[in-house]
Amino acid sequence: MVTEFELIDRLRNRLRQRQPQTQLSIGDDAALLNLNRGTLAAAVDTLVAGVHFPEQTTAADLGWKSLAVNLSDLAAMGATPRWALLALTLPQVGESWVDEFADGWAELADSVGIELIGGDTTRGPLSISVTVLGEVAQRPLLRSGASAGDDLYVSGQLGEAAAGLALLQDRLGCVGSDAQRAALLARLNRPAPRVALGQALAAQASAAIDVSDGLLSDLAHLLRASNLAAMLDLNRLQPSAALAAVIPDARARTHCMLNGGDDYELLFSAPASAADAIDQISADTGTAVRRIGRLDQGTRGLIYAAGSEQPLVAQGWDHFR
Amino acid sequence: MVTEFELIDRLRNRLRQRQPQTQLSIGDDAALLNLNRGTLAAAVDTLVAGVHFPEQTTAADLGWKSLAVNLSDLAAMGATPRWALLALTLPQVGESWVDEFADGWAELADSVGIELIGGDTTRGPLSISVTVLGEVAQRPLLRSGASAGDDLYVSGQLGEAAAGLALLQDRLGCVGSDAQRAALLARLNRPAPRVALGQALAAQASAAIDVSDGLLSDLAHLLRASNLAAMLDLNRLQPSAALAAVIPDARARTHCMLNGGDDYELLFSAPASAADAIDQISADTGTAVRRIGRLDQGTRGLIYAAGSEQPLVAQGWDHFR
Repeated sequence: MVTEFELIDRLRNRLRQRQPQTQLSIGDDAALLNLNRGTLAAAVDTLVAGVHFPEQTTAADLGWKSLAVNLSDLAAMGATPRWALLALTLPQVGESWVDEFADGWAELADSVGIELIGGDTTRGPLSISVTVLGEVAQRPLLRSGASAGDDLYVSGQLGEAAAGLALLQDRLGCVGSDAQRAALLARLNRPAPRVALGQALAAQASAAIDVSDGLLSDLAHLLRASNLAAMLDLNRLQPSAALAAVIPDARARTHCMLNGGDDYELLFSAPASAADAIDQISADTGTAVRRIGRLDQGTRGLIYAAGSEQPLVAQGWDHFR
Repeated sequence: MVTEFELIDRLRNRLRQRQPQTQLSIGDDAALLNLNRGTLAAAVDTLVAGVHFPEQTTAADLGWKSLAVNLSDLAAMGATPRWALLALTLPQVGESWVDEFADGWAELADSVGIELIGGDTTRGPLSISVTVLGEVAQRPLLRSGASAGDDLYVSGQLGEAAAGLALLQDRLGCVGSDAQRAALLARLNRPAPRVALGQALAAQASAAIDVSDGLLSDLAHLLRASNLAAMLDLNRLQPSAALAAVIPDARARTHCMLNGGDDYELLFSAPASAADAIDQISADTGTAVRRIGRLDQGTRGLIYAAGSEQPLVAQGWDHFR
């Protein structure tokens, strides 16, 4: 029988990533990391079964997603992912569960080069807490750096993960093709953290945040940190064909794009003079980036749609509401 | 009504500790830490309600203990505590719960100077996962450095936390004085991580581990890492008056001292030549330290009691057994 001590070893042994600065990883009381210079970025995020993911989510998808949501935080700082620590709470020992979890984790970890250096497994209701450490080479990308007049951009396609969840919960009926449904589910279960985009933006963007709780909710955080308001051009929030197929009603679709959670896209601001550079970064990193509005003076944190007097109110995903 | 975003801010605002190297803490996507040189020690540990602590444990005790069990890992590396990240899963929003948790955390954090720089609160069954980062100035204290012939030492008093838990669960009957019972409960709820001792030992000890799952269980980890066996002198495991009062049977008491969990004492080895230096460290740090045996060649990981042919088998606290 496998013990809790062996589970984390087993997990690490299935992972390939090793950082040259790791002096000591799993197996002692703490991991040891050599840092000769520079700045470290540290973040933690937890996924709880039934709250952050449906109970039927596979172990492999959870391995990917629990790392992805944390990498998204590092991306929003412009940091380079280096190390991760994993606190895994499981209802029972499952060697095969852990192996599948490791497979999903490894798939993403290998693409960004992050190493698992510490862990703890405990018995209890399924919950996954990951701490990530990254290095910031140049200036970090903060929420607080935006100025009035800066353009507002978002990467990728908003609302697809929320549509994937609605499909899974049978809330949309029988809509879309099999391929479209599969693509939306993949956006829910396998979000792509914008690590390369974040690193490249560090030199150009004035502020950034990752969109995890919905565009309006996370934009409000950026605005409060930068002491600004924003004007959104809702016409620029074009839906993908898949999103349009499963949510045919335009109003419902806009609501989904503005409030749906689990996007893990980057929302950032930049001066108009950086527009060409941002196009180039989009091309270099192969990441779609769209300008969706502008920041301006005005009541701190408020978001307006162009042509409307009423501020948009976030109905984002807050686990305690 | 307080949101999950505000809970962690609220918690941090009640804490006084700030590190000069912290460039940015809670409020952005990640914390930023400036490290100009040296080695970082990183560890994570989770406490789950009903598994690692009784459901009736107070929020203040949990604040203390969730930090203490992690500081104990840093102590066992000889590291200086610097930063912590907290992932808190709560069944419902409780401002007063969080305030009390912060009070207990702060009491311990202020005594060792560790700063909370990141956090995440989520809804779900009560669980607390803490990641700690410390700096290792000189050589770290590993599990793997012991040599045959080294003396084996342990700090403090073993078995008291386990006796406290047994009292709480009404498994010992009406034994001991009120003061004795309170002292044992305090050992369970407010363990004292041996931070100063660990830092001082880094120059003298050959190997170290913290005793969290019971002496035999954790000693076996140290022995396997150092490829050694051990001979314990059970007569040197003297019980405190409180422990003797609540577990009068000598055999049961020895079992408790050898296997009881939640001690968070340091178990370490050192060459005989370091004996005087260790006495001095014990005096300087005000921490009782007792020599309880010796390491020797022999089957890797086995532990013998002096005068017995049968190895002692750990019956430690493994959450998955």
